[in-house]
Amino acid sequence: MKQANPFQSTERRANVEGLFHGEEVALANRNSGILLEALRYDVTPVGLHYLLSHFDVPEASEKDWRVEVAGRVRTPASLSLDEIRSFPARTLPVTLECAGNGRGAMSPRYPSMPWICEAVGNAEWTGTPLRNVLDRAGLLDDAAEIAFIGADRGFDRGVEHNFGRSLKRGVASSDDVLVVWAMNGQPLLPQHGYPLRLIVPGWYGMASVKWLTRIEVLAKPYDGFQQAVGYHYRSEPDGPRTPVTHMRVRSLLVPPGIPDWYTRRRLVDAGSVTLAGRAWSGGGVPIARVEVGIDGQWQPAELDPPLGRFSWRGWRCTWRAEPGEHELSCRATDADGDTQPLEPRWDAGGFGNNVVHRVQVTVRAKP
Amino acid sequence: MKQANPFQSTERRANVEGLFHGEEVALANRNSGILLEALRYDVTPVGLHYLLSHFDVPEASEKDWRVEVAGRVRTPASLSLDEIRSFPARTLPVTLECAGNGRGAMSPRYPSMPWICEAVGNAEWTGTPLRNVLDRAGLLDDAAEIAFIGADRGFDRGVEHNFGRSLKRGVASSDDVLVVWAMNGQPLLPQHGYPLRLIVPGWYGMASVKWLTRIEVLAKPYDGFQQAVGYHYRSEPDGPRTPVTHMRVRSLLVPPGIPDWYTRRRLVDAGSVTLAGRAWSGGGVPIARVEVGIDGQWQPAELDPPLGRFSWRGWRCTWRAEPGEHELSCRATDADGDTQPLEPRWDAGGFGNNVVHRVQVTVRAKP
Repeated sequence: MKQANPFQSTERRANVEGLFHGEEVALANRNSGILLEALRYDVTPVGLHYLLSHFDVPEASEKDWRVEVAGRVRTPASLSLDEIRSFPARTLPVTLECAGNGRGAMSPRYPSMPWICEAVGNAEWTGTPLRNVLDRAGLLDDAAEIAFIGADRGFDRGVEHNFGRSLKRGVASSDDVLVVWAMNGQPLLPQHGYPLRLIVPGWYGMASVKWLTRIEVLAKPYDGFQQAVGYHYRSEPDGPRTPVTHMRVRSLLVPPGIPDWYTRRRLVDAGSVTLAGRAWSGGGVPIARVEVGIDGQWQPAELDPPLGRFSWRGWRCTWRAEPGEHELSCRATDADGDTQPLEPRWDAGGFGNNVVHRVQVTVRAKP
Repeated sequence: MKQANPFQSTERRANVEGLFHGEEVALANRNSGILLEALRYDVTPVGLHYLLSHFDVPEASEKDWRVEVAGRVRTPASLSLDEIRSFPARTLPVTLECAGNGRGAMSPRYPSMPWICEAVGNAEWTGTPLRNVLDRAGLLDDAAEIAFIGADRGFDRGVEHNFGRSLKRGVASSDDVLVVWAMNGQPLLPQHGYPLRLIVPGWYGMASVKWLTRIEVLAKPYDGFQQAVGYHYRSEPDGPRTPVTHMRVRSLLVPPGIPDWYTRRRLVDAGSVTLAGRAWSGGGVPIARVEVGIDGQWQPAELDPPLGRFSWRGWRCTWRAEPGEHELSCRATDADGDTQPLEPRWDAGGFGNNVVHRVQVTVRAKP
């Protein structure tokens, strides 16, 4: 007997201009963004890296964990953690950003996790290139796409599924796509995919499947919900759509001075102030330049030494702060010439909003 | 010349029934709650413990950190981390909850961090009893109250201040109040107070001052903003007020089954289901019993062995889940006979809402 689907009719309420629903707040309480002042650390300390989990963090034991490698391979396998860790290890600093970062600043806004700008982090991930695992199993000639399935299961828009995503064979074969067991030199935390996850550098976070239990090699495109339905750009709700892939160029500013608790507005003492922040782009494209806006006047920032091809880049400049009200902003441009828009670019699902970051500051004369 | 106060006139907008302001969402993105499924861990893994920071996480170096001990003492001191760590160490599992937990479920609602129920965690804190530090300095006879000042500074309701709180001399002299340098066996994370903080077991989290830089012994009550103005219960905005101190008795349930991403509603397969969760109270008062409500019918849960006087206590029971819609709830009672209300108890500042936790569940017949 076919079960009625209990969540088929779950409707998301249209949003109200400038106000948020309780469901969005519950998601905001549950998921966590970086604290902007933590942009000061080259490597984001654990617990400060952004975190978004679609479903529940599964209960997992390293001892019992297996990863199935199945589908269009010569030798299907069921690998233990020890077997995975016996492959050559590689550590890579990688900046991850949620594809929905900035959704909460769009108007109208798709009802989902209402990130403003804080869904980012930079960690050192240790694992082995996925290619080593695929080579062990042996891809058949018709292998076109590799799907990655996590242990986390739930509903999204009425469809029950385990979280899963796929990569084209060429992308998956890069040395940079890792099957990962450690973050910042420690075993993965439960919420970051313990005991095993994927890391796909240069892509928005949804590609880096957590709690990896199954690698399925396919001769045709993967039809999992999060690949085939979720994570597409759409300029109108029922219009044509484009898959979300690489991160768009973006920068964030460490808010200077001290905050007001509720509004997070900033107070700065007049004088010489160092402004600093981070910039990154997707697909391994380097940052070409960062500009800092002081009341809409752009000036170049100095770039810190690079931390790695897939890692954010620090930048800084000096501002002579004069008493009064000011708006600070930052704008990055990558080596492809892509830059950040001054106004949010709207998307029906709330994806890819890389608008410039603005911080309102009151400067007071020194006592 | 006296400076104009830039945030004096910062007004918080009255809330709209069932809807939240952007400032509340920005705070919810910034601060983070426990994931309810992480109630399964006796000790909350780092990064899953609730976190609320009034101002910015300060930049800190263990090497340069000093704690001043001043005021009504025989020998004022400026202690290094090494000196603090040379006192006898003590490790204590302590459950901390934010005093504003449940604020977002009140109506009308004070505009601040809109916790629903998730502002809790249980960690193993390592430090030395504060008493050792106070004894070294030598309290004078008129010492009545001890104030603890953090390095974090900002504005709240127009008042600029470093976060600070105080304890009466008798409370501060307990062996259980710790000056702490490690959490779960590792140095404190930046966001949890690195390199040094206070832990006041049995109290709501505001008492456990992070980034501790100054201990001031006073002959009269401490007049810091967070002690004298913030953190008071008020049954009407301008009515009489009572200081917020110990945690109120509370319990939370690990939501069974699998979630819907947006609504977090749960789907459970029919049959025998283990329901489990945590319960705690304040002031070291033990949990006497936990009841689980199935559609409003209360049944006793079994308590797990205690983890420590100031630590939450696990509980569990078995539910024979029948297909249909159900509401699960849990209610703890402590050894003083205090129990959780069925409806939120309203407070003007949104403090101390220990309403029973309810989870909506759809049960489906097994396929």
